[in-house]
Amino acid sequence: MEKSIMVMKFGGATLATPLLMRGVAERIFAAKEEGKDVVVVLSAPGDMTDELIEKAKAITPNPDEREMDMLLATGEQQSIALMAIALKALGCDAISFTGPQVGIVTDDAHSKARIVKMGGEKIHKALHLGKVAIVAGFQGETEEEEITTLGRGGSDLTAVALAAALKSEVCEFYKDVDGVYTANPRVVPDARKLELISYDEMLEMASLGAQVLYHRSVEFAKKNNIVLHVRSSTKPDAGTLITKEVQPMEGYLVTGITHAKDEAKLTILWVPDQPGIAAKIFCALAEADINIDVIVQDISEEGTTNISFTVNKSDLVRAKTILDRLASELGAKGVLADENIGKVSVVGVGMMSHSGVAAKMFSALAERGINIQMISTSEIKISVIVAEDLVEDAVRAIHERFNLSELD
Amino acid sequence: MEKSIMVMKFGGATLATPLLMRGVAERIFAAKEEGKDVVVVLSAPGDMTDELIEKAKAITPNPDEREMDMLLATGEQQSIALMAIALKALGCDAISFTGPQVGIVTDDAHSKARIVKMGGEKIHKALHLGKVAIVAGFQGETEEEEITTLGRGGSDLTAVALAAALKSEVCEFYKDVDGVYTANPRVVPDARKLELISYDEMLEMASLGAQVLYHRSVEFAKKNNIVLHVRSSTKPDAGTLITKEVQPMEGYLVTGITHAKDEAKLTILWVPDQPGIAAKIFCALAEADINIDVIVQDISEEGTTNISFTVNKSDLVRAKTILDRLASELGAKGVLADENIGKVSVVGVGMMSHSGVAAKMFSALAERGINIQMISTSEIKISVIVAEDLVEDAVRAIHERFNLSELD
Repeated sequence: MEKSIMVMKFGGATLATPLLMRGVAERIFAAKEEGKDVVVVLSAPGDMTDELIEKAKAITPNPDEREMDMLLATGEQQSIALMAIALKALGCDAISFTGPQVGIVTDDAHSKARIVKMGGEKIHKALHLGKVAIVAGFQGETEEEEITTLGRGGSDLTAVALAAALKSEVCEFYKDVDGVYTANPRVVPDARKLELISYDEMLEMASLGAQVLYHRSVEFAKKNNIVLHVRSSTKPDAGTLITKEVQPMEGYLVTGITHAKDEAKLTILWVPDQPGIAAKIFCALAEADINIDVIVQDISEEGTTNISFTVNKSDLVRAKTILDRLASELGAKGVLADENIGKVSVVGVGMMSHSGVAAKMFSALAERGINIQMISTSEIKISVIVAEDLVEDAVRAIHERFNLSELD
Repeated sequence: MEKSIMVMKFGGATLATPLLMRGVAERIFAAKEEGKDVVVVLSAPGDMTDELIEKAKAITPNPDEREMDMLLATGEQQSIALMAIALKALGCDAISFTGPQVGIVTDDAHSKARIVKMGGEKIHKALHLGKVAIVAGFQGETEEEEITTLGRGGSDLTAVALAAALKSEVCEFYKDVDGVYTANPRVVPDARKLELISYDEMLEMASLGAQVLYHRSVEFAKKNNIVLHVRSSTKPDAGTLITKEVQPMEGYLVTGITHAKDEAKLTILWVPDQPGIAAKIFCALAEADINIDVIVQDISEEGTTNISFTVNKSDLVRAKTILDRLASELGAKGVLADENIGKVSVVGVGMMSHSGVAAKMFSALAERGINIQMISTSEIKISVIVAEDLVEDAVRAIHERFNLSELD
């Protein structure tokens, strides 16, 4: 009979020093001693990925992407080697594998590759021999043996994809935070740790700025029905489970508040209100690979309208250049750019069928004198754009209004 | 018609900073612009290999060798990625390859693997496309896709092995020194740079402590008749050519003086002078993988003799333990260990047929009051063991006596 396989993913912050590495090794050894087959996925230690990017940028501001993948893949390779060394030193047999070695095959989109095939033979062989298998996150190779990386949150994705391929029931994420909270505890000191959250809620939380798990990993887990467990790397307590089925309790409509400050707002003023104009604008941005988040179009006045939307701050300059060109083409009056904005969102399954949620949120903001610049809603979230310096205030106001510190 | 391929090897000291990297990239670009097909082999940048070893030792004093190879291979991988980035930024098309990617197949002796097969397909393809091919030194993989490293001087070996596989006529080594000298210029300020030196002389120089090229690379070059060129990474001048044919000029018997302080002396006292005793001692040491250098056996007196030899300082404790055990087995009186010794050697093709060389060397030492503890000779060298604190003095005395600063 097959033992169940446990996938344990450790983030870079939990691997920043040899001492922390030894602590993580003890944690892994303990899981192994409980009789589980353990597969470990690791990020690069500490800030190594950022340091390597800096080194490359010291040579040229626009380093080649294929070579950046070659460079960055070394970070996770160092982690897995050091972890195998630490485990063996504890008397726990272990073996490390790079992404290419375990057969993580990706497409050739360097710096943001997608996994197309997941090997498992070497891992099964290692587990069969009683070893802990340690796999480098974030990396793979193409069919032509070119080293690739999976982009932001890539190591989390490796862990979930491995859990799916190995038919593991749960994928554990060991972090320097001990779970998912109703809001960022640095902003709301009495924020409450959630025991359970649904994939969809987590997806909204993830893409809205709760930097615990990136959305690609959550999407992958949802599609493959893998339970995710976000927990502390140093404390034994259970963290937050992310699953399909979450029984919403009465009066428990709002799961959490998230916020993000990585967006900027662009507005095209007085653009002619004709069919096809919006399409023109957003096709041009899509061609330049610029992602759009919140979009708002004003009511048309005298045949013209204003279109506002948000992009990632890092894309602002490029987006502005494209819009300036389009503005004169389209006969618009001009383009405004505003970097000083932030986004605050409430997330919760089923809340959109309760109109009270939006009203409560907006009135909480109004009472603090916080002006809402844009609004966007989905089935399970309401987001507002406010001035950047009011974001924390807004989060606290909404958190308090929904009484999220207390479990009803 | 095939263009001739130029293999350029750059050492870690020449790659220690982004600025140095950019300088090396310009040098490579210049060679490429001269119309050559260029293959570059790189070491890990700066002291990175030592830093990684320290990290592993901070976890455990005896890290697993398979995992150390996994760890250390990242150093060269960072170098090649950064160099490809630097070249492309200059407008010089380039592509980096790990050892495994170019098909450097080794045996499975982790930390000191031997190359058993050398691929070249990816390199030829890259050169055909007009790219500079940048290969990670020091590393390969086994038939089972296990990452291995080649041990000390491994990157030099990669360069020479690639030069052989690619039928390159010359393999250039760019160093922070500008050639091979008649003695270490830090010890003998007026030491002279050699224009030419034979493989055999270089072998003696290399294994005797002139840390310019490791002997495995020189042996490989000798066997495959590849001309080596040791030169400065920053100055354009020619350095030292290492070739098969060196015409010894009249009065030019001694090529250079080398010295080393990495050995220690062991003596077994009053061991019975019987056949098989020496074999027993040195077999035991060979089994423990301890290399022996100079061996001297005293004249037998009253049926016993003293056997002295030198080992690498790092092997002294293990060798002493083995000898202590053997001494009582063999009925010897005891074992002496002396770490404070050094070796000084004169090297030169044809000098052994001139008895004057040894006499000159010994009298130069005698005049300075330097006691000779052991003597060892080969066809092209004479080595003496002296007290460690007299080594520099000995080198200077001999260098002066043979007038090596001047080219006769």
